[in-house]
Amino acid sequence: MEALFSPRSIAVVGASHNPQKVGHVLFYNLLRSFDGPVYPVNVKGGEILGKKVYKSLKELPEVPDLVFIAIPAPSVPTVMKEAVEMGVKAMVIISGGFGEVGNEELDEELKKALGGRDLPVLGPNCIGIYTPRFNGTFLSPERMDFPPRGSVSILSQSGAIIAAMLDVFAREDIGVSKVVSLGNKLFLDEVDFLKYLKGDPETDVVVLYLEDVKRGRALFEELREMSRHKPVIILKGGKTKSGMKAASSHTEAMLGDYDVFRGAMRQAGVIEVNSLEEMVDVILSLKQPLPRGNKLLIVTNGGGFGVLASDYAEEFGLELSPWKKELDLPPHVVQSNPFDLTGDARPEWYLEVLRRSEDYDAALVIITPQLATVDPSIARLLSLSPIPVYAFVPGWKYGEYLREKLIEAGIPAYESLRDAMRTIAKLVDYSRRRRLL
Amino acid sequence: MEALFSPRSIAVVGASHNPQKVGHVLFYNLLRSFDGPVYPVNVKGGEILGKKVYKSLKELPEVPDLVFIAIPAPSVPTVMKEAVEMGVKAMVIISGGFGEVGNEELDEELKKALGGRDLPVLGPNCIGIYTPRFNGTFLSPERMDFPPRGSVSILSQSGAIIAAMLDVFAREDIGVSKVVSLGNKLFLDEVDFLKYLKGDPETDVVVLYLEDVKRGRALFEELREMSRHKPVIILKGGKTKSGMKAASSHTEAMLGDYDVFRGAMRQAGVIEVNSLEEMVDVILSLKQPLPRGNKLLIVTNGGGFGVLASDYAEEFGLELSPWKKELDLPPHVVQSNPFDLTGDARPEWYLEVLRRSEDYDAALVIITPQLATVDPSIARLLSLSPIPVYAFVPGWKYGEYLREKLIEAGIPAYESLRDAMRTIAKLVDYSRRRRLL
Repeated sequence: MEALFSPRSIAVVGASHNPQKVGHVLFYNLLRSFDGPVYPVNVKGGEILGKKVYKSLKELPEVPDLVFIAIPAPSVPTVMKEAVEMGVKAMVIISGGFGEVGNEELDEELKKALGGRDLPVLGPNCIGIYTPRFNGTFLSPERMDFPPRGSVSILSQSGAIIAAMLDVFAREDIGVSKVVSLGNKLFLDEVDFLKYLKGDPETDVVVLYLEDVKRGRALFEELREMSRHKPVIILKGGKTKSGMKAASSHTEAMLGDYDVFRGAMRQAGVIEVNSLEEMVDVILSLKQPLPRGNKLLIVTNGGGFGVLASDYAEEFGLELSPWKKELDLPPHVVQSNPFDLTGDARPEWYLEVLRRSEDYDAALVIITPQLATVDPSIARLLSLSPIPVYAFVPGWKYGEYLREKLIEAGIPAYESLRDAMRTIAKLVDYSRRRRLL
Repeated sequence: MEALFSPRSIAVVGASHNPQKVGHVLFYNLLRSFDGPVYPVNVKGGEILGKKVYKSLKELPEVPDLVFIAIPAPSVPTVMKEAVEMGVKAMVIISGGFGEVGNEELDEELKKALGGRDLPVLGPNCIGIYTPRFNGTFLSPERMDFPPRGSVSILSQSGAIIAAMLDVFAREDIGVSKVVSLGNKLFLDEVDFLKYLKGDPETDVVVLYLEDVKRGRALFEELREMSRHKPVIILKGGKTKSGMKAASSHTEAMLGDYDVFRGAMRQAGVIEVNSLEEMVDVILSLKQPLPRGNKLLIVTNGGGFGVLASDYAEEFGLELSPWKKELDLPPHVVQSNPFDLTGDARPEWYLEVLRRSEDYDAALVIITPQLATVDPSIARLLSLSPIPVYAFVPGWKYGEYLREKLIEAGIPAYESLRDAMRTIAKLVDYSRRRRLL
């Protein structure tokens, strides 16, 4: 696997002269990002982006560690065989047109071309690999941003979803380590990658988007093992009949019963999410230690949001146990749970409440910046909280600015109150299951 | 009511010299936004923002149409009486410290001060009024933006929630007409304002945030009447026991059974939402005509998102009836529902599908811009759709750019696929109930 993620040299078979083509963007991305030699291979020869094009793998000055293949499907087996014979260490097959369009014969040819070698092969029908070492995808850098170096690894059966994730992770400043588009999973599948990521010191959190699962038992075992050490977040596509039908026309998916899958995921200690937004919310929340239980304290500077937060807490099964202390705060402050500091709340007041929060497992702090006497100093103050703290900050420019400051200080900050509450409930549930493992 | 929303002159009793105080920001906002005379009143006299301060209402050169009162609670009845005697036409009491903190005696004094006159009085304990004619709130323009002129009117029992709404509406370019912070509703309540807004030619959509309801029957009748002509969107705070408890400590709220409320809202043809985000989603969706039924067509350029969309459609009760036609599109396109145009989808292909969508009531269009060959020309093309169309566009910079282009072309565009689907389901439900009215 090292050759997939840390190759010393890379070749792109199907590097294209046409800037609109997948094979061009892929080569461009690799050339721009990779610190070693990247060789374009194309029967037409010539030059691409100022680099000499080799007519075949055999003409290369060295045997590349990693080969990307982005040529029409029928030609892939031949190139693959050539690569195997030369002794390349890993392959990524970008090309589509195999099992996913019913062409199972070509799948068989691919398998034959590999000849039973124990060589990591990703794909076919995938968008590639992205790591801080190189961008091995054909995603256009004009259309999106890429996230910084970090410790979240992604395995996804959908290229479109990876693209959206990378772009959103870039915005949220969530750093990534290994990002893998699984494609048709003809050779390597999620189980293989989970085995590798388990021991990968650069990965602290694993994110999965899965549609079909072929090795259910093995997946369960790997996830259970992984969850003991690193949080795993999963988004499952094809949970409903309609979703399964859609998935089977899009991949080769054979989908099982979702209830069984869901039960297994819970038992394995996995955090299941229902959307990309929820996934991002959970990743952000892992900046704080996990809550030990479900006793929640709400601290607010806006009464209405305190009311909504209480509704959401009950909706998601969090307990708003009563506040029992008497703090030295102005008389108009409502010392209850929600603890309503009211519109003239000062940042220090929030901390005063949190300092006495030992009866609670977590705090949701509501900061309405439009009304308020709060300023960015609140970020540092909240980071002194003895219990895990999560913030809801509504609004646009100033709200965004405050959310950024909070996130920089290690406080997960959300623009949606309901999503913040749902995330806390998910963490409480995860924390409980994790202890059971 | 005209005097509240279209006064010819305004006085601010409690205009303050101290820029940190509510009475200063309120005066500043009015001075900057209002096209007529704004008189500061403060016993201290002097000047504020270059304007001569009058020591009492009686000293003013004219009887102002509208008086804002932002002074300590015990002094409010006296000023109110003076204003009534002078013949002012409407009042807004910003000051807090009345029923909401258990001071019912002061409530009685306020009522006595009005002396049974039929004069519109808003508050006490509110953040004021905002209209395109003037900003009569103490919300700091340094901390937030204000929305443009438009046709959405807001009635809210929470000032913090109004502040967040205005800021978010500004970002989403949702224009407003009359924005009212109801406060303690000692005089005017939501029923009075609904009666007025019903006949207001500047209001096309009404948004409500309510905690307690004192005149349930009258509210129901007004909403039912309003819904025949203008969509009403409601967010209810205090639905659960925890929420009710929080609401009763924050306002004078007496809360009833939420199930009864919910049933009445449905019968009245109101669109109920569960969060601010959902409210904004619904408002944006009203750019399109209402779907007639629940048959949904999904058109996508990313298979994985098609799968998730199918899951969400089933979750929210929308019907994905099968696609039965054969269009002249490349062979790798999956002509099904979801209709998967795949990664190389061109804008024209989307329209080709939509042009033949007569069997469906609405279309959800998925545009993954990171992968794609789509460009902003898709906005104009989608606007030619014969059925209502809603778009999901994931991602950051380019995604945001595309969403803006779509919204400008009248296509509601969402960053969350699940929220987009939930919104469509809400519209389908609303459309059915509206026909029943």
